[in-house]
Amino acid sequence: MQNLIFSNQVQAAVEQSAARGNHNMTVWIADANTANFLPESAVNVITIPDGDAAKSLPTVCRVWDEMQRLGVTRHSLVINLGGGMVTDLGGFAAATFKRGVRFINVPTTLLGAVDAAVGGKTGFNYGGLKNEVGAFAPASDVIISTRYFDTLPASEMKSGFAEVIKHSMLSDRTEFLRLLDHDFTAPIDHDDLLERLRRSVQVKVDIVGHDPHEHGEREALNLGHTAGHAFEALALQRGTPVPHGYAVAWGLVTEAVLSHLRLGFSSDDVHRLGAFVRDNYRDFPFTCDDYDELLQLMRHDKKSRNGEITCTLLEAIGNYRLGQTVDCDDMTAALDILRDHLGL
Amino acid sequence: MQNLIFSNQVQAAVEQSAARGNHNMTVWIADANTANFLPESAVNVITIPDGDAAKSLPTVCRVWDEMQRLGVTRHSLVINLGGGMVTDLGGFAAATFKRGVRFINVPTTLLGAVDAAVGGKTGFNYGGLKNEVGAFAPASDVIISTRYFDTLPASEMKSGFAEVIKHSMLSDRTEFLRLLDHDFTAPIDHDDLLERLRRSVQVKVDIVGHDPHEHGEREALNLGHTAGHAFEALALQRGTPVPHGYAVAWGLVTEAVLSHLRLGFSSDDVHRLGAFVRDNYRDFPFTCDDYDELLQLMRHDKKSRNGEITCTLLEAIGNYRLGQTVDCDDMTAALDILRDHLGL
Repeated sequence: MQNLIFSNQVQAAVEQSAARGNHNMTVWIADANTANFLPESAVNVITIPDGDAAKSLPTVCRVWDEMQRLGVTRHSLVINLGGGMVTDLGGFAAATFKRGVRFINVPTTLLGAVDAAVGGKTGFNYGGLKNEVGAFAPASDVIISTRYFDTLPASEMKSGFAEVIKHSMLSDRTEFLRLLDHDFTAPIDHDDLLERLRRSVQVKVDIVGHDPHEHGEREALNLGHTAGHAFEALALQRGTPVPHGYAVAWGLVTEAVLSHLRLGFSSDDVHRLGAFVRDNYRDFPFTCDDYDELLQLMRHDKKSRNGEITCTLLEAIGNYRLGQTVDCDDMTAALDILRDHLGL
Repeated sequence: MQNLIFSNQVQAAVEQSAARGNHNMTVWIADANTANFLPESAVNVITIPDGDAAKSLPTVCRVWDEMQRLGVTRHSLVINLGGGMVTDLGGFAAATFKRGVRFINVPTTLLGAVDAAVGGKTGFNYGGLKNEVGAFAPASDVIISTRYFDTLPASEMKSGFAEVIKHSMLSDRTEFLRLLDHDFTAPIDHDDLLERLRRSVQVKVDIVGHDPHEHGEREALNLGHTAGHAFEALALQRGTPVPHGYAVAWGLVTEAVLSHLRLGFSSDDVHRLGAFVRDNYRDFPFTCDDYDELLQLMRHDKKSRNGEITCTLLEAIGNYRLGQTVDCDDMTAALDILRDHLGL
């Protein structure tokens, strides 16, 4: 299983993790941005371009080529320093080079820390599809800190925070309510945020532990994502992409509304969530003219079965139900109510 | 774990394996030769070039592209029909497409049946190195038959048989002696050969089961391969490649001699093995002028530690010792004695 280390003493944590193996070499993988965070002691560095467009086979080949040039063996250690793109792609390259080199993830974004870096999904985009090629290959260690977040744009903090809220909705109402008090304009309280991350990541780890290869319970993590992916995909098609977590935030409200309509989920909680999303993720770029296209996208979601819209829904915070099929009328009603919540 | 099915009723076995999943589509992968063995019912077929030169990233991409075109999903089934190149490459492509599609191996060569198709090693050649990129990803089922062997060239039968002998040396002296009675000029006795395969593959499965990711005991399967890989590599460098199993056969004699010198392995068994290899794998294309280069290659073997030659050796048939370092004098002596056994 994965070792999770929550610490803002990143260098010490990395050294401790590295010392747990008898490695002949340590190689860092960073992107053009996160290269700034490399420690001075990093000698062997593979730098890749940043951004989702570079999450591609040519970049994977560049990493394999550099690994060969540096003489990486099965006894070497790879450290991925970056957001989800670096940990997904670097993890795949390490997991497949010589059929597997040990790797550690050091996520530098909130979204990476609570989502991509943990749980073993690696891969890259191929043939126009996101994460079309990849492997389930957990990092041996994930070192989670908040020390890189001070320079993150507010939109990236918010984007990651949507996944933190999602995890609380799957597990713990006290934590959920506490998160809704978060103020993105205040300076980061590192100790408090690290504690929030610890709780959030544990939710994912518990679910993934029961279902590492996504045959069942892992689908719980899809909460908010059936609607969320449709928002994200439609915005991308139009050339006006939205951050992943914004789409998830809107998706969470949509699916909380559906949970209320279908499973009696508390309307108080829907309203609390709706107010938080209205205050922090307002710029929802869709109207009722987009419903047909959104429903179409939801029917083609990866998790969809036989062309039916399928969601994870909640009876209550912490009590989820997988594989709920939703008809178009209910989804349309939920989208209307979402727009009400956002004040549009 | 892997289901192993030993049957010459291949089509029925495939249908039974396929029926164990609720698949939306079945896709066959074959190479230019094994496409002849496809059943008429095979509708979705991906054909790749044959030969080790095609065990490359462009061929992997061709498979991924076709999988996309055919609409393969995580609920599809891939059937690899071919020798080690097809099962290694097809297995990797399936294991990484959408992070993993179920696949079945149907090996068509003796070497594939007793070695490549079983045990979960997949991959392709990259950057000039064999199997440089890959994954440990076992086929869900392996259907082992002898029905494709009637048309195999004698050199391919002999090549695979060397691995069968190796497995017997790791496990069972009665089986070892029985195998040394084999007559390659006689027509194949399918029932008997299938029983030999069953015993042989079980040896590999038992060892791999204790060490799927090659951290320890799996090194037992390296018997004969430290010397064998050096023979194979030198022949390749010279542009006069030898079949893998021939190099292994010579390597088995070399390491049996070392086992006698170092661990008191029975000289009778060395002589019996030597005689069989002399009779069937005679064309040994090296002289004492090649020893320096061969020793050099052995020091750079994947399994070598700190530049020392490392072998799996035997105290007796069925009683192996891993990670035995061998000095150059002993190896030189063993090569001399190998040449004596071969009558050169």
